[in-house]
Amino acid sequence: MKVQVLQNILEFNDTLADQNRGVFDAHKVFVINLMSSPGAGKTTLLERTLKEGVLKDYRIGVIEGDIRTTLDGERLEALKVPVVQINTAVACHLDGQMISNACTALDLDSLDILFIENVGNLVCPAEFRVGEHQKVVLLSVPEGADKPLKYPLMFHESSLLLITKTDMLPQADVELNAIRSNALQVNPTLDIIELSAKTGAGIAQWGEWIKGKRTSCFGK
Amino acid sequence: MKVQVLQNILEFNDTLADQNRGVFDAHKVFVINLMSSPGAGKTTLLERTLKEGVLKDYRIGVIEGDIRTTLDGERLEALKVPVVQINTAVACHLDGQMISNACTALDLDSLDILFIENVGNLVCPAEFRVGEHQKVVLLSVPEGADKPLKYPLMFHESSLLLITKTDMLPQADVELNAIRSNALQVNPTLDIIELSAKTGAGIAQWGEWIKGKRTSCFGK
Repeated sequence: MKVQVLQNILEFNDTLADQNRGVFDAHKVFVINLMSSPGAGKTTLLERTLKEGVLKDYRIGVIEGDIRTTLDGERLEALKVPVVQINTAVACHLDGQMISNACTALDLDSLDILFIENVGNLVCPAEFRVGEHQKVVLLSVPEGADKPLKYPLMFHESSLLLITKTDMLPQADVELNAIRSNALQVNPTLDIIELSAKTGAGIAQWGEWIKGKRTSCFGK
Repeated sequence: MKVQVLQNILEFNDTLADQNRGVFDAHKVFVINLMSSPGAGKTTLLERTLKEGVLKDYRIGVIEGDIRTTLDGERLEALKVPVVQINTAVACHLDGQMISNACTALDLDSLDILFIENVGNLVCPAEFRVGEHQKVVLLSVPEGADKPLKYPLMFHESSLLLITKTDMLPQADVELNAIRSNALQVNPTLDIIELSAKTGAGIAQWGEWIKGKRTSCFGK
Protein backbone atom coordinates (compact mmCIF):
# COMPACT_ATOMS: atom_id res chain seq x y z
CA MET A 1 0.00 0.00 0.00
CA LYS A 2 2.72 2.42 0.99
CA VAL A 3 4.76 1.23 -1.99
CA GLN A 4 1.80 1.96 -4.24
CA VAL A 5 1.62 5.55 -3.00
CA LEU A 6 5.32 5.90 -3.64
CA GLN A 7 4.96 4.57 -7.19
CA ASN A 8 2.30 7.12 -8.10
CA ILE A 9 4.34 9.98 -6.70
CA LEU A 10 7.40 8.77 -8.63
CA GLU A 11 5.48 8.47 -11.92
CA PHE A 12 4.10 11.99 -11.57
CA ASN A 13 7.56 13.24 -10.69
CA ASP A 14 9.09 11.62 -13.79
CA THR A 15 6.66 13.51 -16.03
CA LEU A 16 7.70 16.83 -14.47
CA ALA A 17 11.37 15.88 -14.66
CA ASP A 18 11.02 15.18 -18.40
CA GLN A 19 9.41 18.60 -18.86
CA ASN A 20 12.28 20.27 -16.97
CA ARG A 21 14.82 18.42 -19.10
CA GLY A 22 13.11 19.69 -22.26
CA VAL A 23 13.34 23.27 -20.96
CA PHE A 24 17.03 22.87 -20.02
CA ASP A 25 17.86 21.43 -23.47
CA ALA A 26 16.00 24.23 -25.24
CA HIS A 27 18.13 26.77 -23.36
CA LYS A 28 21.34 24.71 -23.63
CA VAL A 29 21.74 24.70 -19.87
CA PHE A 30 23.76 21.70 -18.68
CA VAL A 31 22.37 20.54 -15.34
CA ILE A 32 24.20 18.59 -12.64
CA ASN A 33 22.33 17.14 -9.65
CA LEU A 34 24.74 16.95 -6.70
CA MET A 35 23.77 14.45 -4.00
CA SER A 36 25.35 13.13 -0.80
CA SER A 37 24.96 12.64 2.94
CA PRO A 38 24.78 15.79 5.04
CA GLY A 39 28.22 17.30 5.44
CA ALA A 40 29.99 15.44 2.63
CA GLY A 41 31.04 18.79 1.19
CA LYS A 42 28.64 19.75 -1.62
CA THR A 43 28.61 23.47 -0.89
CA THR A 44 32.33 23.59 -0.18
CA LEU A 45 32.97 21.81 -3.49
CA LEU A 46 30.91 24.41 -5.37
CA GLU A 47 32.71 27.23 -3.56
CA ARG A 48 36.11 25.83 -4.48
CA THR A 49 35.00 25.10 -8.07
CA LEU A 50 33.91 28.71 -8.49
CA LYS A 51 37.01 30.14 -6.76
CA GLU A 52 39.47 28.00 -8.75
CA GLY A 53 37.96 29.27 -12.01
CA VAL A 54 38.04 25.82 -13.63
CA LEU A 55 34.72 26.69 -15.30
CA LYS A 56 35.50 30.35 -15.91
CA ASP A 57 34.41 30.20 -19.56
CA TYR A 58 30.91 29.16 -18.52
CA ARG A 59 28.07 31.08 -16.92
CA ILE A 60 27.12 29.23 -13.72
CA GLY A 61 23.90 29.15 -11.70
CA VAL A 62 22.93 27.23 -8.57
CA ILE A 63 19.70 25.85 -7.15
CA GLU A 64 20.27 25.15 -3.50
CA GLY A 65 18.06 22.64 -1.68
CA ASP A 66 17.82 22.50 2.11
CA ILE A 67 15.17 21.44 4.59
CA ARG A 68 15.63 24.82 6.24
CA THR A 69 17.95 27.83 6.34
CA THR A 70 19.57 29.81 3.54
CA LEU A 71 23.10 29.25 4.91
CA ASP A 72 24.39 27.39 1.85
CA GLY A 73 22.67 29.70 -0.60
CA GLU A 74 24.30 32.70 1.06
CA ARG A 75 27.76 31.11 0.83
CA LEU A 76 27.37 30.69 -2.93
CA GLU A 77 25.68 34.03 -3.58
CA ALA A 78 28.75 35.64 -2.04
CA LEU A 79 30.65 34.29 -5.07
CA LYS A 80 28.54 36.36 -7.47
CA VAL A 81 26.54 33.59 -9.11
CA PRO A 82 22.73 33.54 -9.36
CA VAL A 83 21.34 31.30 -6.60
CA VAL A 84 17.80 30.13 -5.93
CA GLN A 85 17.30 28.63 -2.49
CA ILE A 86 14.58 26.02 -2.03
CA ASN A 87 13.52 25.18 1.53
CA THR A 88 11.77 21.84 1.43
CA ALA A 89 10.35 22.02 5.00
CA VAL A 90 9.32 18.36 5.42
CA ALA A 91 10.64 16.83 2.19
CA CYS A 92 13.97 15.03 2.37
CA HIS A 93 14.76 15.49 -1.33
CA LEU A 94 14.18 17.85 -4.25
CA ASP A 95 11.61 16.85 -6.87
CA GLY A 96 10.62 17.87 -10.39
CA GLN A 97 8.00 20.36 -9.25
CA MET A 98 10.39 22.18 -6.91
CA ILE A 99 12.96 22.53 -9.68
CA SER A 100 10.32 23.71 -12.15
CA ASN A 101 9.25 26.39 -9.68
CA ALA A 102 12.82 27.42 -8.90
CA CYS A 103 13.61 27.84 -12.61
CA THR A 104 11.00 30.60 -12.91
CA ALA A 105 13.35 32.68 -10.74
CA LEU A 106 16.36 32.05 -13.03
CA ASP A 107 17.22 33.56 -16.44
CA LEU A 108 18.08 30.29 -18.19
CA ASP A 109 19.27 32.09 -21.34
CA SER A 110 22.10 33.60 -19.33
CA LEU A 111 23.35 30.24 -17.98
CA ASP A 112 25.56 27.47 -19.42
CA ILE A 113 25.77 25.22 -16.37
CA LEU A 114 23.28 24.84 -13.52
CA PHE A 115 24.27 23.03 -10.36
CA ILE A 116 21.43 21.63 -8.28
CA GLU A 117 22.60 20.97 -4.74
CA ASN A 118 20.15 18.44 -3.38
CA VAL A 119 19.10 17.98 0.27
CA GLY A 120 21.78 16.13 2.24
CA ASN A 121 20.50 12.54 2.17
CA LEU A 122 22.01 9.41 0.68
CA VAL A 123 18.62 7.75 0.09
CA CYS A 124 15.59 9.61 -1.26
CA PRO A 125 17.20 12.09 -3.69
CA ALA A 126 18.29 9.10 -5.79
CA GLU A 127 14.63 8.17 -6.35
CA PHE A 128 13.50 11.55 -7.67
CA ARG A 129 14.73 12.71 -11.09
CA VAL A 130 14.57 16.48 -11.48
CA GLY A 131 15.44 16.81 -15.18
CA GLU A 132 19.22 16.82 -14.72
CA HIS A 133 21.73 15.72 -17.39
CA GLN A 134 24.06 14.12 -14.86
CA LYS A 135 23.69 12.82 -11.34
CA VAL A 136 26.84 13.14 -9.22
CA VAL A 137 27.24 11.60 -5.78
CA LEU A 138 29.78 12.78 -3.21
CA LEU A 139 31.13 10.39 -0.59
CA SER A 140 33.48 11.88 1.97
CA VAL A 141 36.35 9.78 3.26
CA PRO A 142 35.24 9.89 6.94
CA GLU A 143 31.87 8.31 6.05
CA GLY A 144 33.52 4.96 5.39
CA ALA A 145 34.02 2.59 2.48
CA ASP A 146 30.87 0.50 3.01
CA LYS A 147 28.41 3.23 1.97
CA PRO A 148 28.06 2.20 -1.73
CA LEU A 149 26.97 -1.28 -0.60
CA LYS A 150 24.56 0.07 2.01
CA TYR A 151 23.00 2.80 -0.14
CA PRO A 152 23.30 1.20 -3.58
CA LEU A 153 20.58 3.11 -5.45
CA MET A 154 22.42 6.41 -5.06
CA PHE A 155 25.63 4.97 -6.51
CA HIS A 156 23.76 3.00 -9.17
CA GLU A 157 21.92 6.09 -10.45
CA SER A 158 24.94 8.41 -10.50
CA SER A 159 27.40 8.66 -13.37
CA LEU A 160 30.22 10.16 -11.27
CA LEU A 161 31.41 9.51 -7.73
CA LEU A 162 33.42 12.28 -6.11
CA ILE A 163 35.42 10.93 -3.18
CA THR A 164 35.76 14.09 -1.07
CA LYS A 165 37.87 15.12 1.92
CA THR A 166 40.83 13.01 0.78
CA ASP A 167 42.95 15.27 2.99
CA MET A 168 41.43 13.32 5.91
CA LEU A 169 42.73 9.94 4.73
CA PRO A 170 45.60 9.86 7.26
CA GLN A 171 43.11 10.18 10.17
CA ALA A 172 40.30 7.98 8.83
CA ASP A 173 40.50 4.19 8.89
CA VAL A 174 39.34 4.10 5.28
CA GLU A 175 41.01 2.73 2.15
CA LEU A 176 40.42 4.55 -1.14
CA ASN A 177 40.63 1.23 -2.96
CA ALA A 178 37.82 -0.16 -0.82
CA ILE A 179 35.57 2.81 -1.65
CA ARG A 180 36.39 2.37 -5.34
CA SER A 181 35.79 -1.36 -5.47
CA ASN A 182 32.54 -1.17 -3.49
CA ALA A 183 31.25 1.62 -5.72
CA LEU A 184 32.22 -0.21 -8.93
CA GLN A 185 30.57 -3.37 -7.62
CA VAL A 186 27.27 -1.47 -7.46
CA ASN A 187 27.85 0.44 -10.72
CA PRO A 188 30.65 -0.79 -13.01
CA THR A 189 30.35 2.24 -15.34
CA LEU A 190 30.74 4.82 -12.58
CA ASP A 191 33.41 7.48 -13.13
CA ILE A 192 35.40 8.24 -9.97
CA ILE A 193 37.39 11.35 -9.04
CA GLU A 194 39.22 11.80 -5.75
CA LEU A 195 39.37 15.35 -4.48
CA SER A 196 39.84 17.67 -1.56
CA ALA A 197 38.06 21.00 -1.61
CA LYS A 198 40.43 22.01 1.19
CA THR A 199 43.71 21.48 -0.71
CA GLY A 200 42.27 21.86 -4.21
CA ALA A 201 43.45 18.41 -5.30
CA GLY A 202 41.20 16.96 -8.00
CA ILE A 203 39.25 20.18 -8.65
CA ALA A 204 40.78 20.63 -12.11
CA GLN A 205 39.87 17.04 -13.02
CA TRP A 206 36.29 17.64 -11.84
CA GLY A 207 36.14 20.75 -14.03
CA GLU A 208 37.35 18.76 -17.05
CA TRP A 209 34.74 16.06 -16.41
CA ILE A 210 31.95 18.65 -16.45
CA LYS A 211 33.26 20.30 -19.64
CA GLY A 212 33.53 16.94 -21.39
CA LYS A 213 29.99 15.91 -20.48
CA ARG A 214 28.59 19.31 -21.46
CA THR A 215 30.33 19.14 -24.83
CA SER A 216 28.88 15.66 -25.39
CA CYS A 217 25.42 17.17 -24.91
CA PHE A 218 25.59 20.56 -26.57
CA GLY A 219 28.91 20.70 -28.46
CA LYS A 220 31.58 23.33 -27.80
CA MET B 1 -1.84 16.52 -1.29
CA LYS B 2 1.54 14.93 -0.68
CA VAL B 3 1.55 16.39 2.83
CA GLN B 4 -1.86 14.82 3.44
CA VAL B 5 -0.53 11.38 2.47
CA LEU B 6 2.39 11.92 4.82
CA GLN B 7 0.04 12.90 7.66
CA ASN B 8 -1.98 9.69 7.35
CA ILE B 9 1.11 7.53 7.29
CA LEU B 10 2.47 9.32 10.34
CA GLU B 11 -0.78 8.92 12.31
CA PHE B 12 -0.93 5.21 11.56
CA ASN B 13 2.74 4.91 12.52
CA ASP B 14 2.16 6.65 15.86
CA THR B 15 -0.47 4.07 16.79
CA LEU B 16 1.96 1.22 16.12
CA ALA B 17 4.73 3.04 17.98
CA ASP B 18 2.49 3.39 21.04
CA GLN B 19 1.75 -0.36 20.91
CA ASN B 20 5.49 -1.13 20.71
CA ARG B 21 6.17 1.14 23.67
CA GLY B 22 3.56 -0.71 25.71
CA VAL B 23 5.25 -4.02 24.91
CA PHE B 24 8.70 -2.66 25.82
CA ASP B 25 7.41 -1.28 29.14
CA ALA B 26 5.69 -4.55 30.00
CA HIS B 27 9.01 -6.39 29.53
CA LYS B 28 11.08 -3.59 31.15
CA VAL B 29 13.21 -3.26 28.04
CA PHE B 30 14.74 0.21 27.75
CA VAL B 31 14.85 1.20 24.08
CA ILE B 32 17.20 3.72 22.47
CA ASN B 33 16.68 4.84 18.86
CA LEU B 34 20.07 5.81 17.39
CA MET B 35 19.91 8.16 14.41
CA SER B 36 22.44 10.02 12.26
CA SER B 37 23.75 10.64 8.77
CA PRO B 38 25.38 7.68 7.03
CA GLY B 39 28.85 7.13 8.40
CA ALA B 40 28.55 9.16 11.59
CA GLY B 41 29.58 6.09 13.56
CA LYS B 42 26.46 4.41 14.97
CA THR B 43 27.70 0.84 14.55
CA THR B 44 31.22 1.69 15.69
CA LEU B 45 29.75 3.36 18.78
CA LEU B 46 27.77 0.21 19.63
CA GLU B 47 30.86 -1.95 19.06
CA ARG B 48 32.93 0.19 21.41
CA THR B 49 30.11 0.40 23.97
CA LEU B 50 29.89 -3.41 24.07
CA LYS B 51 33.68 -3.89 24.11
CA GLU B 52 34.27 -1.34 26.89
CA GLY B 53 31.76 -3.15 29.11
CA VAL B 54 30.21 0.10 30.36
CA LEU B 55 26.83 -1.69 30.30
CA LYS B 56 28.11 -5.07 31.44
CA ASP B 57 25.40 -5.40 34.12
CA TYR B 58 22.69 -5.21 31.48
CA ARG B 59 21.55 -7.67 28.84
CA ILE B 60 21.79 -5.91 25.47
CA GLY B 61 20.01 -6.51 22.16
CA VAL B 62 20.21 -4.71 18.84
CA ILE B 63 17.80 -4.07 15.97
CA GLU B 64 19.84 -3.01 12.99
CA GLY B 65 18.21 -1.01 10.17
CA ASP B 66 19.76 -0.70 6.73
CA ILE B 67 18.43 -0.18 3.23
CA ARG B 68 20.45 -3.23 2.22
CA THR B 69 23.23 -5.55 3.41
CA THR B 70 23.74 -7.24 6.77
CA LEU B 71 27.23 -5.74 7.19
CA ASP B 72 26.41 -3.81 10.37
CA GLY B 73 24.38 -6.64 11.86
CA GLU B 74 27.29 -9.03 11.36
CA ARG B 75 29.71 -6.64 13.10
CA LEU B 76 27.48 -6.58 16.19
CA GLU B 77 26.56 -10.27 16.17
CA ALA B 78 30.31 -10.96 16.39
CA LEU B 79 30.13 -9.36 19.86
CA LYS B 80 27.71 -12.05 21.09
CA VAL B 81 24.56 -9.97 21.42
CA PRO B 82 21.22 -10.89 19.82
CA VAL B 83 20.80 -8.89 16.61
CA VAL B 84 17.83 -8.61 14.26
CA GLN B 85 18.68 -7.06 10.91
CA ILE B 86 15.95 -5.17 9.05
CA ASN B 87 16.53 -4.40 5.37
CA THR B 88 14.16 -1.60 4.42
CA ALA B 89 14.71 -1.89 0.62
CA VAL B 90 13.14 1.42 -0.47
CA ALA B 91 12.34 3.01 2.89
CA CYS B 92 14.80 5.58 4.21
CA HIS B 93 13.81 5.09 7.85
CA LEU B 94 12.53 2.48 10.29
CA ASP B 95 8.87 2.65 11.31
CA GLY B 96 6.61 1.19 13.99
CA GLN B 97 5.54 -1.78 11.91
CA MET B 98 9.13 -2.81 11.11
CA ILE B 99 10.08 -2.70 14.79
CA SER B 100 6.97 -4.64 15.78
CA ASN B 101 7.91 -7.34 13.26
CA ALA B 102 11.55 -7.40 14.34
CA CYS B 103 10.56 -7.85 17.99
CA THR B 104 8.89 -11.18 17.21
CA ALA B 105 12.43 -12.45 16.55
CA LEU B 106 13.73 -11.26 19.95
CA ASP B 107 13.20 -12.71 23.43
CA LEU B 108 12.29 -9.45 25.18
CA ASP B 109 12.24 -11.11 28.62
CA SER B 110 15.96 -11.73 28.29
CA LEU B 111 16.83 -8.09 27.49
CA ASP B 112 17.34 -4.97 29.63
CA ILE B 113 18.40 -2.55 26.91
CA LEU B 114 17.55 -2.62 23.20
CA PHE B 115 19.45 -0.41 20.78
CA ILE B 116 17.68 0.36 17.51
CA GLU B 117 20.19 1.53 14.92
CA ASN B 118 18.14 3.45 12.40
CA VAL B 119 18.86 3.87 8.68
CA GLY B 120 21.60 6.44 8.10
CA ASN B 121 19.59 9.58 7.32
CA LEU B 122 19.39 12.90 9.13
CA VAL B 123 15.84 13.63 7.94
CA CYS B 124 13.10 10.99 7.82
CA PRO B 125 13.93 8.83 10.86
CA ALA B 126 13.11 11.86 13.03
CA GLU B 127 9.52 11.83 11.73
CA PHE B 128 8.78 8.19 12.59
CA ARG B 129 8.49 7.15 16.24
CA VAL B 130 9.10 3.44 16.74
CA GLY B 131 8.16 3.11 20.43
CA GLU B 132 11.57 4.07 21.82
CA HIS B 133 12.15 5.57 25.28
CA GLN B 134 14.93 7.85 24.06
CA LYS B 135 15.96 9.24 20.71
CA VAL B 136 19.70 9.84 20.38
CA VAL B 137 21.29 11.67 17.44
CA LEU B 138 24.95 11.30 16.47
CA LEU B 139 26.72 14.12 14.65
CA SER B 140 30.29 13.43 13.61
CA VAL B 141 32.81 16.26 13.71
CA PRO B 142 33.64 16.11 9.95
CA GLU B 143 29.98 16.76 9.04
CA GLY B 144 30.24 20.36 10.17
CA ALA B 145 28.68 22.59 12.81
CA ASP B 146 25.76 23.85 10.72
CA LYS B 147 23.87 20.55 10.65
CA PRO B 148 21.57 21.21 13.66
CA LEU B 149 20.31 24.37 11.93
CA LYS B 150 19.85 22.63 8.59
CA TYR B 151 18.19 19.47 9.91
CA PRO B 152 16.42 20.87 12.98
CA LEU B 153 13.71 18.22 13.45
CA MET B 154 16.28 15.52 14.19
CA PHE B 155 17.94 17.63 16.88
CA HIS B 156 14.61 18.88 18.21
CA GLU B 157 13.22 15.37 18.66
CA SER B 158 16.32 13.87 20.28
CA SER B 159 17.09 14.06 23.98
CA LEU B 160 20.83 13.44 23.57
CA LEU B 161 23.37 14.60 20.99
CA LEU B 162 26.52 12.52 20.71
CA ILE B 163 29.26 14.51 19.00
CA THR B 164 31.32 11.67 17.51
CA LYS B 165 34.80 11.38 15.94
CA THR B 166 36.22 14.08 18.20
CA ASP B 167 39.63 12.57 17.40
CA MET B 168 39.24 14.27 14.00
CA LEU B 169 38.94 17.79 15.44
CA PRO B 170 42.54 18.74 14.56
CA GLN B 171 41.89 17.97 10.86
CA ALA B 172 38.35 19.34 10.58
CA ASP B 173 37.60 23.06 10.37
CA VAL B 174 34.89 22.63 12.98
CA GLU B 175 34.47 24.16 16.43
CA LEU B 176 32.86 22.04 19.15
CA ASN B 177 31.36 25.19 20.63
CA ALA B 178 29.64 25.97 17.34
CA ILE B 179 28.09 22.49 17.20
CA ARG B 180 26.94 22.88 20.80
CA SER B 181 25.44 26.33 20.39
CA ASN B 182 23.68 25.47 17.12
CA ALA B 183 22.23 22.30 18.65
CA LEU B 184 21.07 24.10 21.80
CA GLN B 185 19.51 26.85 19.68
CA VAL B 186 17.27 24.19 18.09
CA ASN B 187 16.70 22.28 21.35
CA PRO B 188 17.68 24.03 24.59
CA THR B 189 17.05 20.89 26.70
CA LEU B 190 19.34 18.65 24.63
CA ASP B 191 21.99 16.70 26.55
CA ILE B 192 25.36 16.66 24.76
CA ILE B 193 28.25 14.21 25.10
CA GLU B 194 31.47 14.45 23.10
CA LEU B 195 33.07 11.12 22.29
CA SER B 196 35.43 9.20 20.10
CA ALA B 197 34.73 5.52 19.51
CA LYS B 198 38.31 5.34 18.24
CA THR B 199 40.05 6.53 21.41
CA GLY B 200 37.27 5.57 23.83
CA ALA B 201 36.89 9.14 25.13
CA GLY B 202 33.35 9.80 26.34
CA ILE B 203 32.20 6.16 26.19
CA ALA B 204 31.95 5.87 29.98
CA GLN B 205 29.87 9.06 30.13
CA TRP B 206 27.56 7.67 27.42
CA GLY B 207 27.16 4.49 29.49
CA GLU B 208 26.26 6.53 32.58
CA TRP B 209 23.69 8.53 30.61
CA ILE B 210 21.96 5.32 29.49
CA LYS B 211 21.97 3.86 33.01
CA GLY B 212 20.52 7.06 34.46
CA LYS B 213 17.72 7.23 31.92
CA ARG B 214 16.91 3.55 32.33
CA THR B 215 16.73 3.92 36.12
CA SER B 216 14.38 6.89 35.70
CA CYS B 217 12.05 4.62 33.72
CA PHE B 218 12.25 1.28 35.49
CA GLY B 219 14.19 1.82 38.72
CA LYS B 220 17.40 0.01 39.60
